Amino acid sequence: MAWFQNIGIIAKQHQDPRVAATVERAAGKLQALGVRTRFEQATARLLGRTDGIEIEALGAHCDLVLVVGGDGTFLHAARELADFDLALVGINLGRLGFLVDILPDEIEDRLEQILSGAYDADSRILLDARMGEQSKPERALNDVVIHKWNSVRMIEFETYIDGRFVNAQRSDGLIVATPTGSTAYALSGGGPLIHPRLDALLLVPICPHTLSNRPLVIPGSSRIEIRLCSPDPEQVRLTCDGQIALPLRTGASIRIERSPRRIRLLHPRDHDHYRILRAKLGWGGHTQADTPC
Amino acid sequence: MAWFQNIGIIAKQHQDPRVAATVERAAGKLQALGVRTRFEQATARLLGRTDGIEIEALGAHCDLVLVVGGDGTFLHAARELADFDLALVGINLGRLGFLVDILPDEIEDRLEQILSGAYDADSRILLDARMGEQSKPERALNDVVIHKWNSVRMIEFETYIDGRFVNAQRSDGLIVATPTGSTAYALSGGGPLIHPRLDALLLVPICPHTLSNRPLVIPGSSRIEIRLCSPDPEQVRLTCDGQIALPLRTGASIRIERSPRRIRLLHPRDHDHYRILRAKLGWGGHTQADTPC
Amino acid sequence: MAWFQNIGIIAKQHQDPRVAATVERAAGKLQALGVRTRFEQATARLLGRTDGIEIEALGAHCDLVLVVGGDGTFLHAARELADFDLALVGINLGRLGFLVDILPDEIEDRLEQILSGAYDADSRILLDARMGEQSKPERALNDVVIHKWNSVRMIEFETYIDGRFVNAQRSDGLIVATPTGSTAYALSGGGPLIHPRLDALLLVPICPHTLSNRPLVIPGSSRIEIRLCSPDPEQVRLTCDGQIALPLRTGASIRIERSPRRIRLLHPRDHDHYRILRAKLGWGGHTQADTPC
Amino acid sequence: MAWFQNIGIIAKQHQDPRVAATVERAAGKLQALGVRTRFEQATARLLGRTDGIEIEALGAHCDLVLVVGGDGTFLHAARELADFDLALVGINLGRLGFLVDILPDEIEDRLEQILSGAYDADSRILLDARMGEQSKPERALNDVVIHKWNSVRMIEFETYIDGRFVNAQRSDGLIVATPTGSTAYALSGGGPLIHPRLDALLLVPICPHTLSNRPLVIPGSSRIEIRLCSPDPEQVRLTCDGQIALPLRTGASIRIERSPRRIRLLHPRDHDHYRILRAKLGWGGHTQADTPC
Repeated sequence: MAWFQNIGIIAKQHQDPRVAATVERAAGKLQALGVRTRFEQATARLLGRTDGIEIEALGAHCDLVLVVGGDGTFLHAARELADFDLALVGINLGRLGFLVDILPDEIEDRLEQILSGAYDADSRILLDARMGEQSKPERALNDVVIHKWNSVRMIEFETYIDGRFVNAQRSDGLIVATPTGSTAYALSGGGPLIHPRLDALLLVPICPHTLSNRPLVIPGSSRIEIRLCSPDPEQVRLTCDGQIALPLRTGASIRIERSPRRIRLLHPRDHDHYRILRAKLGWGGHTQADTPC
Repeated sequence: MAWFQNIGIIAKQHQDPRVAATVERAAGKLQALGVRTRFEQATARLLGRTDGIEIEALGAHCDLVLVVGGDGTFLHAARELADFDLALVGINLGRLGFLVDILPDEIEDRLEQILSGAYDADSRILLDARMGEQSKPERALNDVVIHKWNSVRMIEFETYIDGRFVNAQRSDGLIVATPTGSTAYALSGGGPLIHPRLDALLLVPICPHTLSNRPLVIPGSSRIEIRLCSPDPEQVRLTCDGQIALPLRTGASIRIERSPRRIRLLHPRDHDHYRILRAKLGWGGHTQADTPC
Repeated sequence: MAWFQNIGIIAKQHQDPRVAATVERAAGKLQALGVRTRFEQATARLLGRTDGIEIEALGAHCDLVLVVGGDGTFLHAARELADFDLALVGINLGRLGFLVDILPDEIEDRLEQILSGAYDADSRILLDARMGEQSKPERALNDVVIHKWNSVRMIEFETYIDGRFVNAQRSDGLIVATPTGSTAYALSGGGPLIHPRLDALLLVPICPHTLSNRPLVIPGSSRIEIRLCSPDPEQVRLTCDGQIALPLRTGASIRIERSPRRIRLLHPRDHDHYRILRAKLGWGGHTQADTPC
Repeated sequence: MAWFQNIGIIAKQHQDPRVAATVERAAGKLQALGVRTRFEQATARLLGRTDGIEIEALGAHCDLVLVVGGDGTFLHAARELADFDLALVGINLGRLGFLVDILPDEIEDRLEQILSGAYDADSRILLDARMGEQSKPERALNDVVIHKWNSVRMIEFETYIDGRFVNAQRSDGLIVATPTGSTAYALSGGGPLIHPRLDALLLVPICPHTLSNRPLVIPGSSRIEIRLCSPDPEQVRLTCDGQIALPLRTGASIRIERSPRRIRLLHPRDHDHYRILRAKLGWGGHTQADTPC
């Protein structure tokens, strides 16, 4: 008996013929393994199929979803599917990603292993951001970023954690990241690398106009509030996972906290977080990092 | 009934007359409150008393120990008393410390509050470091640092976490810090600020000779191993809490992990971690940090 | 005989009554000293005068111009007046600025000193930026910044210096600063402090998505070229001194070099660059910086 | 006629047979080109020759000296030969160095070019450091470093530039570097990259215990003075080019300034400073840096 019975597939929306080819290859293997496969609507169209279903239906009917693409495709799928009780696995079309770590050439072997229960599972936290009294939150797997927009001026805001005033700052913005997001925009802003298993949130200021700022790492259960002091809300945006910029209202207060939902990310058994870090971050070049001393 | 029945006092070993005066003041209040007070041996001598007891005896007989001095005095007391089931509270002689947050002028009020149960308790992790097959570990509340010694040459070492190779580096050394230590030497090395409640360890390289290094934040349960590649162990030392430098042996491997013991640190009720950060780190100066927008 | 015969005054365009009061005070002193004073048009209006002249006329007729306001007002005046052979002196309305270092209370004494030749002069370089074949350059005293605009995506560009390829980068942008600008936006981006007398240019990447980037300091005579690789020029802007954002064209190449013009900035005799740095950057707080050891 | 008539050779003192082989190869080519070649004493011994001369004699008799080894060998030769009016060229035994940029396989072609005048010359500044009233200075091509020694405690010192107080700091030390040294220890300490042609000095604090410190870049003509506040001079050392640690005296004052001597470094004609930076610093990996956009 397979561990997963209903498998969904979501792919990057791109004419790149490798996308369709990779999806076909994965679907072929799943058929051979005798599991039921469903396609997300746009993914189905890429293959010329007409039996695609909405992503919510995919979430409702599947216990495992394959995401074919890059980290960007995975981020989108994770946000959409976080409300469902399922696992995600990423198949990369290009070079190794932090989230999509099965290479096209390994598809058959890896799927066979995963469907027989041979995998490592990783539970990843997500962020919920609410502006003002907004009830349905914006969701992010990597980061929620408050940043200047359409302006060359710094923004001013205050940060509160669990109701306590932390500091006021003038800067280009603030990155609130999960451990997953610590290798994304937070890294560009000078933040530390946080192990994905740690239940923590990371705050990294963007170009703060002071020497005394440092990244903050706080418990995952913390409730963060950002109060904008800038006079013109047109010049500030909130962005989730670097994908959509939402406008803010005057006197806006933004509340950010760990989502009650997590995603379950499956990796092949020999998954090594530090090997991916070394490969992606160019570690070891100057110090023969891969030869033990 | 008081929450604590047996109180110990340990003070900074210094001729500064404020030390003895502050200890007398605290002891006077404790006597008025009707609790049994014991003095650590050297502390007793500072007062001209002859009834001091060894620090281990203090640990065995007390359920609360007052530490009078600075963060350095507190670090020493915490390491010595971590094996006992007691609480610690710090009385500062000078300006506010991260660990010693009762000011001399508040002694009477604060002790009365704490002995009536009105306090916030903070559980802090410690580090245990073992060289080679060493069975009794070196202990640290802030940090374990491996660093060059008596030499102008960089050292070379490899880092492993939970048995996985992380990277090799040439640098002046490596800081492994607790969240408590993230405001100490790790801060000088460029590390992030970590909330003391987070169960995490922090690795900060010291002057690494590469552009690709970043601080790492990992789960508190991680087992860290450092393998020295440098030919000459005379030129490397291991230091706990910046207080004692221990020599290493050839081909040394150092294992660092969270201690099975924690310390319980008591604060006055209105303790505000971020206020202390602001005061100590000079936050807010340029942005009117204490005026809400 | 006074060293300067024709004095101009330019003030911040703001209803703040301190502006008009400070200008009146300076003008009163100049009149008492017997020198000819002219007012820039908008500045004249602030005083209810009708004899204001265009800034170009001011530049043509004056050998010294007083700038009343903050660093922002000074930056604007400096760019407009750089083509004329005159000296500038800054009168600050608020707290000490890097460029405006005469306080309102000192106006009379300072003007008397300066007009009698008792001053230190500082020659500051400016930047000229040209997009494509543009002949009249954009000018900046602090910095020329190429940055993403109206977008959450990083931009991609290549940097060339003196015709040599330096690197390609994906980031939020690039700051090219003069030494004067090293305490402005370049500081927020993590750049070093450069002494204003040094004939050098500073390049600081903004949130580069790589660990291997560092600020570059190059000779003032260097010719910098930035070639945009980003597909959409709508999402990139060029900003001078943080004041105006200019759109770029597709495939744009931006050339930045030291302007052939410099500005001459006068300071009171006891001007101390490092004292201003200490005051503005909060140096010395933790180390009793002002008490010699 | 050759541009250089008297050539000296200094090699790394190492049993590595590649050293002797590379020296022989260079000497063979020089003989074929008909120029007079002299060997430094230890270098001569490596070849089994008995006609070696002291390095001072080499300096006095040669107009060009070949340095065979790595950057370390070059630093030593440069300091020793800076008092003589000659040029230096570096032959690298291993991977590309910043200072030794002729590879063994190119020796014949490169020497032929250089001796016919086809080279780029680079004038590099050096530093002179004097402790107290010391008359003969210590010399450095990369950096003069004041640092803690044999101690786990931070040192305290004040920095003065041109007689002006800059700041007081508690840290592990201070790096004063030339532009040449900006890619060495100063880089590890977080300093910017400075073009070797710029006449500037760089100050980088080592692990300063404050958030408000930044690297400083100042004119090459600046006179730097460091006054030690630490009580115990046994715990501070001064090191030049990372090669020798000199003890300091109580209340020591260290004066550091640009040496009146420079060295003249020859490169092959197609020398590209930024290409070496890219290769050594791992630039471009993530952004396809070598493909123009």
